[in-house]
Amino acid sequence: MSGLHKCSSILVTGASRGIGLHLVETLMKSKPRPGKVIAAARDRSRAKELNRLAESHPDLYIVTLDVTNKDDIKAAFKEVESLVGDKGLNCLVNNAGIKLDSTLNEVTAEEMMKNFEVNTVSPLMVTKAFLPLLRKAAKQGTGMGIHRAAIVNVSSMLASIQLNWGEGTKEKWYPYHVSKTALNMVTRCLSSDLLGEGILCMSLCPGWVKTDMGGPQAQLTKEESIDNILKLISNLSEKDNGGFLNHTGETLPW
Amino acid sequence: MSGLHKCSSILVTGASRGIGLHLVETLMKSKPRPGKVIAAARDRSRAKELNRLAESHPDLYIVTLDVTNKDDIKAAFKEVESLVGDKGLNCLVNNAGIKLDSTLNEVTAEEMMKNFEVNTVSPLMVTKAFLPLLRKAAKQGTGMGIHRAAIVNVSSMLASIQLNWGEGTKEKWYPYHVSKTALNMVTRCLSSDLLGEGILCMSLCPGWVKTDMGGPQAQLTKEESIDNILKLISNLSEKDNGGFLNHTGETLPW
Ligand SMILES: NC(=O)c1ccc[n+]([C@@H]2O[C@H](COP(=O)([O-])OP(=O)(O)OC[C@H]3O[C@@H](n4cnc5c(N)ncnc54)[C@H](OP(=O)(O)O)[C@@H]3O)[C@@H](O)[C@H]2O)c1
Ligand SMILES: NC(=O)c1ccc[n+]([C@@H]2O[C@H](COP(=O)([O-])OP(=O)(O)OC[C@H]3O[C@@H](n4cnc5c(N)ncnc54)[C@H](OP(=O)(O)O)[C@@H]3O)[C@@H](O)[C@H]2O)c1
Repeated sequence: MSGLHKCSSILVTGASRGIGLHLVETLMKSKPRPGKVIAAARDRSRAKELNRLAESHPDLYIVTLDVTNKDDIKAAFKEVESLVGDKGLNCLVNNAGIKLDSTLNEVTAEEMMKNFEVNTVSPLMVTKAFLPLLRKAAKQGTGMGIHRAAIVNVSSMLASIQLNWGEGTKEKWYPYHVSKTALNMVTRCLSSDLLGEGILCMSLCPGWVKTDMGGPQAQLTKEESIDNILKLISNLSEKDNGGFLNHTGETLPW
Repeated sequence: MSGLHKCSSILVTGASRGIGLHLVETLMKSKPRPGKVIAAARDRSRAKELNRLAESHPDLYIVTLDVTNKDDIKAAFKEVESLVGDKGLNCLVNNAGIKLDSTLNEVTAEEMMKNFEVNTVSPLMVTKAFLPLLRKAAKQGTGMGIHRAAIVNVSSMLASIQLNWGEGTKEKWYPYHVSKTALNMVTRCLSSDLLGEGILCMSLCPGWVKTDMGGPQAQLTKEESIDNILKLISNLSEKDNGGFLNHTGETLPW
């Protein structure tokens, strides 16, 4: 995976299971690989596979981070700050997410708020908190990408307003769809606001992946998705800033 | 304003001030005009201008509705149900909204949640509550538009992910931008889910209008915006379902 070694440090949220865990696992096995791989999980005691991975890779760092918890965010920042030191943080992957799939008939205000909190507000708040470290890294580089400073928001094709259409299509999952569309706007706001500082931000759809969330009928294995995602992340550059790409690098319509 | 009289009933939220109030005022003066104009305001005691309007127009109906309040929604539904009777409700204008304009440096999770609650979740919950009345109306018509059943979500150009971009542009207002983008996705989900029942749903940007929210520097007077909006609403048809239009009828990019 060319390019990964140019990234001194990468932080992945929601690394206890699914895409996040497999991303971290693949990063640890990659040669060359980022200097520091930091896996964030909200409850280490329940993250059995991640703990097992850490046993065989003593250089994998694990931090506790419920992305909705302000104190966790502060504490995780302190830990990561001391881990990465003067180099700052090169890449933040906002991957943690939940899927509340209520349809029109079922959906409640509480579900809308909950999914928005986890999938939209938390990536923004985690990003805000880690900005000092991303800025530190950005000041030391030129161009754009994970060799300098990049924020990858894990979105979904279901976030596309344009594609979310058509007679006879499935009933919509209001909390999830809306939270991911809103995340795309967070991406776009960040990418515009941070452009001048050389910090890249983009939204990435990992494809439909066999995880607890994606279910067993999903199209892609975790391996297929992650291989593509890592290729894509390694090669991020200026042209991807503010973009919405799927795992194979195709641009998705907003 | 041709077409308005084909609408037997219209309900406008956030009618105490600004665009909502002026929309109701203009509807009351229009000839011909919708059979029943229903203005929803969260606090009648503070809605002086609306009360004055009702004095000179005894056939203007006012209902109490804080769009974030479940009990208010239930009570308003009952009132409107008895007002419109067997004909149902032809047009719901989700206009109530707030603008929290915090920039990246300032924004808090609470502000994100609040603006989302008012501007995104509430239009969805109000729509859900009034669906039985919109369905009743839809069952009696053909085609699509305010002669049958239509939901107009008052969005903003600032909701456009595509347009929200560019070096040297203003710092983003995270809570507001994101809430209106999310509202556009609510529009799109509703328009897809309700297509089969003949209920139209679309997002409308009123332009930048001189109201408390728009400020005195805004481009349009309330009169200019409302004249256009009413023309547009009167002429809504199938092709506008699931769309995002500005006050002059131009399609905006998602
Ligand atoms: N799978 C797909 O087909 C698919 C498609 C499009 C997009 N995505 C997106 O990809 C991302 C990962 O999905 P996945 O398929 O790997 O889902 P998953 O198997 O359900 O795993 C979700 C991960 O997010 C974590 N998480 C949830 N809430 C959290 C919180 N408040 N704080 C910290 N971590 C939290 C979970 O931690 P716990 O173990 O502690 O619960 C878990 O590690 C999500 O953002 C998802 O929306 C997935
Ligand atoms: N003005 C512009 O340039 C502009 C541009 C694009 C979009 N918009 C959108 O147009 C709509 C109307 O804006 P405006 O300019 O008329 O704003 P405004 O002058 O600030 O009036 C806002 C209205 O919304 C009501 N409201 C706020 N929260 C409410 C709640 N929880 N329940 C019920 N009513 C509530 C207010 O009621 P109270 O009087 O009780 O506070 C008031 O009637 C908004 O959705 C806004 O986002 C405006």
